[in-house]
Order: sequence, then C-alpha cells, then structure tokens
Amino acid sequence: MARPIVALLSDFGSRDHYAGSMKGVILGVCPEVSLVDISHHIPPHDIYSGSLELAAARQAFPAGSIFVAVVDPGVGSQRRGIAAEAGSQYFVAPDNGLLSGVFRETPPRQVVELVETRYFGQTVSRTFEGRDRFAPVAAWLATGVQLSRLGPRIVDYNTLKMPKPEVSGSRLEGAVSKIDCFGNVVTNIDRVMFERFAESGAVEMLIGGKAVKRLVNTYTDIGKSEVCALFGSTDHLEIAANGASAGDRLCVRRGTVVKVVRR
Amino acid sequence: MARPIVALLSDFGSRDHYAGSMKGVILGVCPEVSLVDISHHIPPHDIYSGSLELAAARQAFPAGSIFVAVVDPGVGSQRRGIAAEAGSQYFVAPDNGLLSGVFRETPPRQVVELVETRYFGQTVSRTFEGRDRFAPVAAWLATGVQLSRLGPRIVDYNTLKMPKPEVSGSRLEGAVSKIDCFGNVVTNIDRVMFERFAESGAVEMLIGGKAVKRLVNTYTDIGKSEVCALFGSTDHLEIAANGASAGDRLCVRRGTVVKVVRR
Amino acid sequence: MARPIVALLSDFGSRDHYAGSMKGVILGVCPEVSLVDISHHIPPHDIYSGSLELAAARQAFPAGSIFVAVVDPGVGSQRRGIAAEAGSQYFVAPDNGLLSGVFRETPPRQVVELVETRYFGQTVSRTFEGRDRFAPVAAWLATGVQLSRLGPRIVDYNTLKMPKPEVSGSRLEGAVSKIDCFGNVVTNIDRVMFERFAESGAVEMLIGGKAVKRLVNTYTDIGKSEVCALFGSTDHLEIAANGASAGDRLCVRRGTVVKVVRR
Repeated sequence: MARPIVALLSDFGSRDHYAGSMKGVILGVCPEVSLVDISHHIPPHDIYSGSLELAAARQAFPAGSIFVAVVDPGVGSQRRGIAAEAGSQYFVAPDNGLLSGVFRETPPRQVVELVETRYFGQTVSRTFEGRDRFAPVAAWLATGVQLSRLGPRIVDYNTLKMPKPEVSGSRLEGAVSKIDCFGNVVTNIDRVMFERFAESGAVEMLIGGKAVKRLVNTYTDIGKSEVCALFGSTDHLEIAANGASAGDRLCVRRGTVVKVVRR
Repeated sequence: MARPIVALLSDFGSRDHYAGSMKGVILGVCPEVSLVDISHHIPPHDIYSGSLELAAARQAFPAGSIFVAVVDPGVGSQRRGIAAEAGSQYFVAPDNGLLSGVFRETPPRQVVELVETRYFGQTVSRTFEGRDRFAPVAAWLATGVQLSRLGPRIVDYNTLKMPKPEVSGSRLEGAVSKIDCFGNVVTNIDRVMFERFAESGAVEMLIGGKAVKRLVNTYTDIGKSEVCALFGSTDHLEIAANGASAGDRLCVRRGTVVKVVRR
Repeated sequence: MARPIVALLSDFGSRDHYAGSMKGVILGVCPEVSLVDISHHIPPHDIYSGSLELAAARQAFPAGSIFVAVVDPGVGSQRRGIAAEAGSQYFVAPDNGLLSGVFRETPPRQVVELVETRYFGQTVSRTFEGRDRFAPVAAWLATGVQLSRLGPRIVDYNTLKMPKPEVSGSRLEGAVSKIDCFGNVVTNIDRVMFERFAESGAVEMLIGGKAVKRLVNTYTDIGKSEVCALFGSTDHLEIAANGASAGDRLCVRRGTVVKVVRR
C-alpha cells in the first residue's frame, strides 16, 4: 500500500512550535505517513483565505490524501470539529467554514462531527485543538480508520458566504479573492463564467475603477511592468503585471470589485 | 521497525540554504528517516527562545524521536557539542544551554560530548557545524548508533539560568517568557504553581502594571478584544485577547513582570 | 532501494499554496519519495540568488538526489524547460540560467529539453509550470525514468554571466554574492583563489571602501560586534561580525566590490 499523505494548513506561522507539535502527534499515531506543509502562513484567523488556499492546493493531491486545516478563532469554544470526505480525499477541520472552498468545488459525500474521544489526544487543551483533536484524528484516518467511526453524520455543518460573481446586463461583476506573493490579483471569476459571458465579443476589464485592456495567455505576453488580465493556475481571471506587483500598482485588495464589460 | 524521526530546530531562517543542507546530510546517512521542521525562525542567536520552543515541541513527539537543535552563536569556537537522552528521546545540540528547557522538564539520563569524529562530516566547517557535526550525528543516531558511542559522558554541560516564579507573602511573581505569533503572552507560571498559590481564593493578575481581571478557559469566553488570563497549550498562565494581540495591547515583552495577587 | 529524494527550491514564498501544490503532484506520481524544502524564499524572480542557493545546498545531498528549482519570470513563454545530470544528481528547471551555479561547479554530463508531454501534468497552466511541468518530471525521474526519455539532448542551454574575481597586479578583485539572514557578507572569492593570490604574504581586505584587517577562523575569534573576514561554509571569503550583521554595519549589498590587496 502507498504511504498515506497528511497535508497541513494553518495560521500558526513558522516561528512558534505549533505546526511542529501537530506533526509530532501525527507521527506518534501513524509513523509511516508522508507529511506535507501546504502553508502555515494563512493570515491569523482568516478563515476565508485559508479556505481558498486549501481548495486550490487539494486539486494537486492524489485521491486518498488527508488534509488537516486549522484556522480556528473559536478554539476551545462549543464550535464543533468535523471530518469530511469530498472528491475522494479527506478533510479534518473546525466547523467554521474553513472547508467551504473545497465543498463548493466538490460537495462532500459525508461530513461527521468529531465526538469519538478515543481518536483525540489524551488530554485536549482548550487553546490548541490542532494538536490535541484535529492532528490525532487525521493521523487515525491515515492508519485506515473509517470516517464514520469518528462520530455521527451531520448535514448542518457551517459554510462561509463566498461572494459570487453576478451578471447584470452588459456587466459581469466579481471581486478580488486574493493577492498572491508575486502581487498577482486573483478574482472569483472563473474561465467558464467569463467565456459564457464574453462569448466571442470584445470585453474590457475594470478593477477598482481602472481599465485593464488586454487579456493575454501569460505574463510575458506583455511589456515589462504592463498590467494585463489572464487566467491563472486555478483557471480564475487574474490581473497581473509582467515582472511587477499588480496589487501594488492598482492599489486593490480583497473584496475590490472587478467588472467585465461588453464593449 | 518504525521509521526514525529527526526533528530540526534552528535560527537559520527560510531564505538561505542552511536548513536544507542539514536535511541533505541527514538523508545521505539515513535515507529512511522522517524529517520534521519544528522551526527555523528562532530569533538569531536567541538560545533562550530556542530552548523554550524545543521543550514545548518535544512533548508532542513519540518516544525515540531525535531532535537536532542549532542556535549557536559560538559556532567554531571551543564550546562543545553534546548529545543527550531525556524523556526517552534524543537531542543533539551545541553545549550552550539550548537543551535547558528540555532538561528542566525531564532531567537527562545521559549526556555525552561529541568527540567521535567518525560520526561527523568529512570536513567540518568552522562556521556551519549544524551541517557538518550536529546533522550527521543525529542521522547516525537514527540509524541505531548508541549514544555512548558518540563520546564520553559528561556532567558539567551548560544550562541557562531560567527565571523562576517566586512567592512572597500574598504575591506570586513570574515573568513573560514569550509572545507567540497571535500575540498571546505566555508566562513562566504553570498551572500547578498557580493553583497551589491561589488555592480556592480569588486572585488578580497584574502584568506590566495593568490589571487582568478574568481567568477563563479559552479565548472565546470573553468579549471581542477583551484581555483575559487562561492556561495555554503547555499549561502555563497566558494573557490573551479574544481575536486580538494581547502583546500589542499591553505593550509587554519577554521579561515583563507578571504578578498574581491574592485579593 | 533507498527512497528517492526530491528537493525543492523556488521563489513561491510560504503563504500561497504553490509549493504545497508541487508537493501534492510529486506524491501523486511517486508516493515513496522523500520531499525536502531547500527554500521557497528566493527573492521573487531572482534567478541569480536561486542559482547560488541551489549550488550551495546540493553539495550536502547524496548522489541520486533530484532537485526541482522554479524561479521563473518567463513562465508560460517559449523559454524551454530542461532536466540535467550533474555531479551524480538530477536537476529540473526552466532554461533561464537557474542551474548556472550548479553547472559552474560540476559541468553537466547531459542536459535535455523537456518535450515529452507524457511526463507532464494532464493540462499545463501557462502561469504555473512548476506544478504542471517541472514537478511531474522530477517525480517521474524519482520513479526511475531515464533522463534521456524526457526529451532530446541539448548543448545550447542558457547560463548566467556570473561575475568572476580578477587579479590585476597586487589586487584580487571580487564582489559580494549574497548577504545571509545573519548579515554575513558572502563574496565570490573562494579559498583556493585567495590562497594562491595571497601566498604566504600579508593582505588586507577592502569592501565598499572600508578596510577589514583580520582574517580569522570563526566568528568568535574576534571581539563582540567586531568585523572580520573568514572562509564560510562553502569555502568562500566572507565578511562577518561577531554577533552582529556585517551587512548592516558596512552598508553593502550584492555586487559591492571586494578587494584583497597585498601589503
């Protein structure tokens, strides 16, 4: 059998021992696991960002991969912990909407509430459930424990309201969903939506009031520092600048409105 | 046999190749090892911080785990290298007090000085013993080499003077030991100490002269941004703010005095 | 057989899912691989820096290791992808000079252009070839696919012009190649070059016009904060300060001229 994969995502940063402690716990339960860090630099408590990064990353992982995601402002409270199967992969997280991005793309086959304490750590800290609840549950899944053993099935798990692009007349209106470390401005308008709207007609993009004239295939199709639109690695409309930060040049941020207008 | 675990902690940061080079060396000696990064973002040369993170992380790792820790302002000097067994785990580090946090919790069964050059790299750089001395020694331990083979037993290894809380009359006085990436202010007062002092009487906490009135179970037990005290994930008294940085709000830093006062 | 090693280097940072996505892809092709991060914090689009870190790191890895390096301002353009064998190790990268540092030390035995699409991902994004082209190729190499199967041999791969130290009369003139996270100023003058020039005579170092008088063995050979020269972990002349940042003290940066003068 292939070695099980457990991939981690959190807002724990890389200075403190928190992510390392989760990995220690996982290896204690399932020593043959392959551990992968997706990111521990989700902005603190930013469930929405975490949700998008997880949804983007999981597409690259094989079936059977297990993801443990912890962006958890409600740690220690009554909010539930959940585990889910979606798209032939497994997810363990607090029930705060962190799996919304994944569920939007691949609706879950099954979601359970984590109640079976035998799969938790011996004691559960009220401030670090990542180590004491989510990590051990992910590790037990990696050893072959069935999802249904972790607790009862639920259907009322929480999801985030994720802004959806809308068409009105000759406009398709979306929003910036993230700005990556290169300054590429990623929007929530995907290629299918865009092409259905634009058909074969000419369109113009407007972001934060500024016009972006050219839709190209890749960064180097334009002049140095020029701003353009293209479809990025998750097939969403992106505003980018060749060799520069479009985010800085356009002074936009998450939530800034992006319009596609038929000319 | 389970795959051996080697966990790394250093102040090498993530931009340079230093941590990667240590991992390359370890895999060259022991290819079946499971490598885990605890943190490479200990503040440069901050042995005290490194010592605390290592002591906190190791608790989460299984017996038999091997830790290689390098925060080493004296690299290349006459300071010794050591390896130790403590709490059924193994530790490799410069002899500069970096293992003090671990030893305080679990006194070492055995400490040896690293003198057997056959377990070092072929040449040992005077500026990068992490790669040429500590990493290979950790890897040889992972292959099954006995600790006693690495060099003679010593008892005069160095330890840091770590500030200890003190009781005087109706006061228990401790200090801030770290502020984590969420802004939680961790103190050196542990739960046992606190409960013995407070018994069942009412107490008040004072930090940097400011009063902290409530002792709660977790962050969400209080209003948004309110400051409270609680016991954190290593069971030490922590001053925290719900959804905000207590460190920023209180303007405190490592060493700031924390008082618990009987009312 | 030992587990294959795939080591990654990029400018993807640690906040976005990019490095994690590459690792997911690699595990999907070759589940038994040992993944190692060298660095994902190469300054964005800085091929020269990436080239030096990769060349330094690879020396520590065993024969047979596979490196996938992505610092790729020309992603999606006509620039080629390459794979190479050099020094008994394997390298996968865009053909933009990123392997120059490695090739300078160990001229490649073979370089091929990546054209065999069967070793790529199912679709290849024009903005993320790291995930869709370089990662899968590295993973196929890890499963045992021969380099020559990936595409035709080429000899006209690109290399960076890397500044080389020059001797003129009583001067050896080099340049700063990097400043590491401790503030150590690494130059492109290696020990062999230096010793041949200095022979056994007395020399003085000048950096950015300032004199550095002492050549020592390691940081602690000098007083606190004093500036000195020494040979660092890759055996290049380095200007350092004991417990302080020489880069900050001397106000130098990459490219600053470094002179060694016979007295």
